[in-house]
Amino acid sequence: MKSIASIILAAAAAAVAVPASAQFAKPEDAIKYRQSALTVMGTHFGRVAGMANGRIPFDAKVAADNAAIAETLSKLPWAGFGEGTDKGATTRAKPEIWTDNAKFKEASEKMQGEMVKLVAATKTGNLDTIKTAVGATGGACKACHDNFRKE
Amino acid sequence: MKSIASIILAAAAAAVAVPASAQFAKPEDAIKYRQSALTVMGTHFGRVAGMANGRIPFDAKVAADNAAIAETLSKLPWAGFGEGTDKGATTRAKPEIWTDNAKFKEASEKMQGEMVKLVAATKTGNLDTIKTAVGATGGACKACHDNFRKE
Repeated sequence: MKSIASIILAAAAAAVAVPASAQFAKPEDAIKYRQSALTVMGTHFGRVAGMANGRIPFDAKVAADNAAIAETLSKLPWAGFGEGTDKGATTRAKPEIWTDNAKFKEASEKMQGEMVKLVAATKTGNLDTIKTAVGATGGACKACHDNFRKE
Repeated sequence: MKSIASIILAAAAAAVAVPASAQFAKPEDAIKYRQSALTVMGTHFGRVAGMANGRIPFDAKVAADNAAIAETLSKLPWAGFGEGTDKGATTRAKPEIWTDNAKFKEASEKMQGEMVKLVAATKTGNLDTIKTAVGATGGACKACHDNFRKE
């Protein structure tokens, strides 16, 4: 016979082990969250990219600060792509995110890896190094958009 | 006569010293950015608050991780409230943000300070300590919403 304590422990473990999608009460909350995280990430990455392409004056500290925020944000959106969040609010997410989830996960991890490298590049303070990293990161963003985001 | 070098330096300084609002090409970009940052912050703060009020099972590491993200995000929205961003997209921002900007700034800094304390509280792993910090942080959120956000 199971003890009350073991039943409580099992219930608590089950509650903690809920999938990421269950972190959101409704699909629309998950969609709004992931779009928001990508917007904030894109804004800060855009500042570093703007310095790389000469649109914004280069400032090594500002570049490093913005890259660090973008990298932190790059880890977040994925929890908002749980099962059942393909609809519920306006979204450009393609069905392939869920039908070819391994490929989507790989693409998201590629981008996160490039963001880590971008942070390292901005810490060198060398604009050419930063340009290379911005190119690789932007390429990872684009690859994921091409495959998993509607026009 | 000014040297070319000094003119270039002055121009570069002016370009770097642009107000925060100029970090955004259009008011709608600033509005979308600040709303996105507040959405991401609110989602992560909500997880800690959910543990404090018993809606989510308490897990000290998850609480600390979420508080850290919320604290990082708490620094961001304010750059999106520059002059001229009172309209341009759907927004619940009240005119008082710009007409009584010192009070708004004080309220935003109060909240950021409470977030720092929340991070420290989650690091103790003590749920009662976290509950107190969640209450103070939630109070700072509410105070700003009451004064500066339309219903």
